[in-house]
Amino acid sequence: MLLKVASTISREMQLDKLLRVIMDEVKNVLQCDRCTVFVLDRERNEIWSKVAHGEKEIRFPAHLGIAGHVVTTGRVINIPDAYADDRFNPNIDKQTGYHTQTILAAPMRNKLGEIIGVFQTLNKFEGHFTTEDEETLDAISALSATQIENAQLYENQKKTFDSFIETLASTIDARDPLTAGHSQRIMLYAAELARVLHLSEKEMEVLRISALLHDYGKIAVRESILTKEDRLTETEYKHIRNHAAYTKSILENINFSGALRQVPLIASSHHERIDGTGYPAGLVDEQIPKLSKILAVVDVFDALTSKRHYRTRMPFHEVMQTLSAGIGTQFDPLYVNAFRQIKLNRLLTILEQEHLALLRKSDLTLLEEYDSIDYIAAFQAPYPLEQEKRLILTFQTYYMQQYLQPGT
Amino acid sequence: MLLKVASTISREMQLDKLLRVIMDEVKNVLQCDRCTVFVLDRERNEIWSKVAHGEKEIRFPAHLGIAGHVVTTGRVINIPDAYADDRFNPNIDKQTGYHTQTILAAPMRNKLGEIIGVFQTLNKFEGHFTTEDEETLDAISALSATQIENAQLYENQKKTFDSFIETLASTIDARDPLTAGHSQRIMLYAAELARVLHLSEKEMEVLRISALLHDYGKIAVRESILTKEDRLTETEYKHIRNHAAYTKSILENINFSGALRQVPLIASSHHERIDGTGYPAGLVDEQIPKLSKILAVVDVFDALTSKRHYRTRMPFHEVMQTLSAGIGTQFDPLYVNAFRQIKLNRLLTILEQEHLALLRKSDLTLLEEYDSIDYIAAFQAPYPLEQEKRLILTFQTYYMQQYLQPGT
Repeated sequence: MLLKVASTISREMQLDKLLRVIMDEVKNVLQCDRCTVFVLDRERNEIWSKVAHGEKEIRFPAHLGIAGHVVTTGRVINIPDAYADDRFNPNIDKQTGYHTQTILAAPMRNKLGEIIGVFQTLNKFEGHFTTEDEETLDAISALSATQIENAQLYENQKKTFDSFIETLASTIDARDPLTAGHSQRIMLYAAELARVLHLSEKEMEVLRISALLHDYGKIAVRESILTKEDRLTETEYKHIRNHAAYTKSILENINFSGALRQVPLIASSHHERIDGTGYPAGLVDEQIPKLSKILAVVDVFDALTSKRHYRTRMPFHEVMQTLSAGIGTQFDPLYVNAFRQIKLNRLLTILEQEHLALLRKSDLTLLEEYDSIDYIAAFQAPYPLEQEKRLILTFQTYYMQQYLQPGT
Repeated sequence: MLLKVASTISREMQLDKLLRVIMDEVKNVLQCDRCTVFVLDRERNEIWSKVAHGEKEIRFPAHLGIAGHVVTTGRVINIPDAYADDRFNPNIDKQTGYHTQTILAAPMRNKLGEIIGVFQTLNKFEGHFTTEDEETLDAISALSATQIENAQLYENQKKTFDSFIETLASTIDARDPLTAGHSQRIMLYAAELARVLHLSEKEMEVLRISALLHDYGKIAVRESILTKEDRLTETEYKHIRNHAAYTKSILENINFSGALRQVPLIASSHHERIDGTGYPAGLVDEQIPKLSKILAVVDVFDALTSKRHYRTRMPFHEVMQTLSAGIGTQFDPLYVNAFRQIKLNRLLTILEQEHLALLRKSDLTLLEEYDSIDYIAAFQAPYPLEQEKRLILTFQTYYMQQYLQPGT
C-alpha cells in the first residue's frame, strides 16, 4: 500500500497537483475525513497550504496553531478530542462551520532532517488515530518530503527559464527605446491569433517564446543603423536583414528541449514570405512553419502601428489594407483573415499597452460587444452602419491620439 | 525493504549518482554480484550505461544483447545458465574476464508505460533468480523509472540554465568584436584565483556566473560610446559608468536561487574600490563582497592585457605594476597577492585563449615547472636568476607577439 503511494506521488512534478494527490492518498490510507499538507516557507517564516478542495491559499506565521506547534517542537501530535485540548483553536471551526473531533499532525522532514512542512489529518472515520496511523503518516511524510522538494525545485527552474526569456527579450528593447515593447506586443498579438486559431498549449508556448525572441539577432546589428533616422542605404538594409540569421544561430546555442527545439527556426523565419522572396532562407509557402507565418503577420502589424525613427503611426485602415495587400505574396491568407477576427478591445489593449490606465472600461466593454467586423471597409468613412460608426469612432479616438502625438 | 529503496533513491537528483545508488540497492536486495541499469536513448536509438564500478560509459544499438532483447520484446528475461542460452553473447565475458552464470533482466517503464531502460542483474549468490526476484526487480524498476526521468529533467534544466548564461555573456561580446571573449576570460582568471584561494564549490559557481555576466549592463550603453576610438568626454564616461548599475537591475530580474541570489550584487560591484571612490554604490573595503574584489582585480588585468580601441596591449610588467599600485586604494591586497600566485602557464593559456594552437606544449610544461615568482621584479631586466630568465623570455615571446601585433 505504501509502495502504491510512493509510486503515485513520485509521478507528479507539479506542486499543486502533487499536494492534492498526497492529501487524497493520505485520507484514503488513514480512513479520515480531511488531510492538509502545510508547507513551511523559511524565508517568510510562514506556513502555507491550499485549503482542501479549494484553490485558495492560506498563510499564517510559522508558530501558530497545531501545525505551528509541530513545526516548533518537531513532534507528532495525536489528539483524540480536539475541544478538550488547549493547543486546538476552535475559531477556525467557527469560521468554516466544520466540526473537528480528532487530529493527527506530523512533521515532514527532508533528507537533511530539516522540517519542511506539516501533515495534518482530521476526523478519523472510526474511533481516533492509532499509533499505527502515526507510523503510517510518518512513512508517507518521508516519501512526500523529497518529492515536494523536487517539485519546488522544478517549479523554481520553470520560473528561472521564464525570467531568462524575459531578460533576453528586454535586452533587445534596451538597445532602442523607440522599439521598446515590440517583442512583448508581438507576443501578445500572437497569443490572440493563437486563441482565434485554437492552437494547442504546446504550440502556444513555442509561439510565445519565439515571439519574445524573434528579433534577438538584432544584438549583432550595429546600433547606428538600427536607430538611423534617415532612409537606409542598400548596404545598411542588407546588414539589418542579417538579424534573422543571427537570431537562428544565437538561439541554437540555447539548450531548448521538447517542442521548444523548434524555437530557433520559428523565431528566425518571421521575415520569410510565401512567394519565396523573404529571408534568411527564402523558403516558399509550405516550407515556412505555421508559427512563423503568424509571426510574419503580427510583426508587420506592430511595425506599422508603432512610431518609428522615420515615420509616425500609420492610420489603422491603411495598416489593414497593407496586410490584405500582402496576401498571397508576403502572407498566408489564413493568418491575415484570422487576425481580422481579433476583437477591437483586445487589439486596443495591446496597442496601448503602455497607457492602459487611459483606457476607459466602458469603452472597452463597448468594443467587446461587437462580433468581428470588416476592418477594412469599416474604417473608411462613410461608415456602413450606424452601430459600427460608434464602435470605430471609439477605437479611433484612442488610436488617433497616439497617431497625432507621435513619440508619446 | 522496498520502502527503504524508494526512500533512498528518491533523494538523489544527480543522474550518475542515482544510477549508482539504484544499482547498489538492487545488488543488495536481490543478493547478486552485479547490477547494471541501461538507459534507452530514443533519439539515437541506443542503450547506454556507466559500467559498474567504473566511470566509463558504454553505448550500443538498442536491439543488441540481452538488454536489447528486453527493449525489443518488453518482457522479463530470467536465464538460469547463461552459456546454455542462445541470447547470451559470451564475447563480453571474454573481453572483461568476468564469468556470467545467471541473468535476470527486466524492462523499466515510465508512467506512460514506455520503456525507458533495462535492469540487468548477474550471478545470484545462491542458486538462480526466482519468480520473487522478478517481482521485486519489477517493483524497483517502477520506482526507479520516475526518479530517473526526474533526474534527466533536472540535468537537462541545468544545461539549459548554463546555455542561457553563455548566451547572455556572448550577447555582450557580440556588440563589440574587440572586447569579444572578455567575459569568458574574466571567468577563467577568476576561476584561477578561486583555486589559489581555495574557495568552496558554491562560491566558485557564484563567481563563475558573476564573472560571465559582470558587464551585462553595457547592453544599455550606447554603442557609439562603447566603441569610440578617441578619448571619452566626461559625459560619455559617466554614461559608461552606468553599466554597473544596469548590470544590477537587469540581473535582478532573473530568478536566481540559493547562493546564486548574490549574483546581481557581486557582478555589479566589480568597479567598487576599497577606498570608497568606486561605483555604482561607492562601497568601502569591508562593504564590498569578497567575490566582487576578485572580479575587480581580474577585470583590470584583462583590460590592460587586451587590445582596446584606443591602445595596444600593455607590457606585462607594467600591468603587474598597475595592479600593485592599486593596492590599498583600488584593490584589496589579498587578491592582488593571490593573483601573483597564478602560474605563468595558466595565465598564458587564458591570455592566448584564441590562439591555443600556437602554444607549444613544451613551453607550457616549462612554465609550469616553476613555483610562483615575483612577477614585478622578474619581468624587468636585468633578470635576477638565470632560470627565471628562461621562463620569462618564453612567456614574453608569446605575450609580446600579441603586443607587437595589435588587433590579431
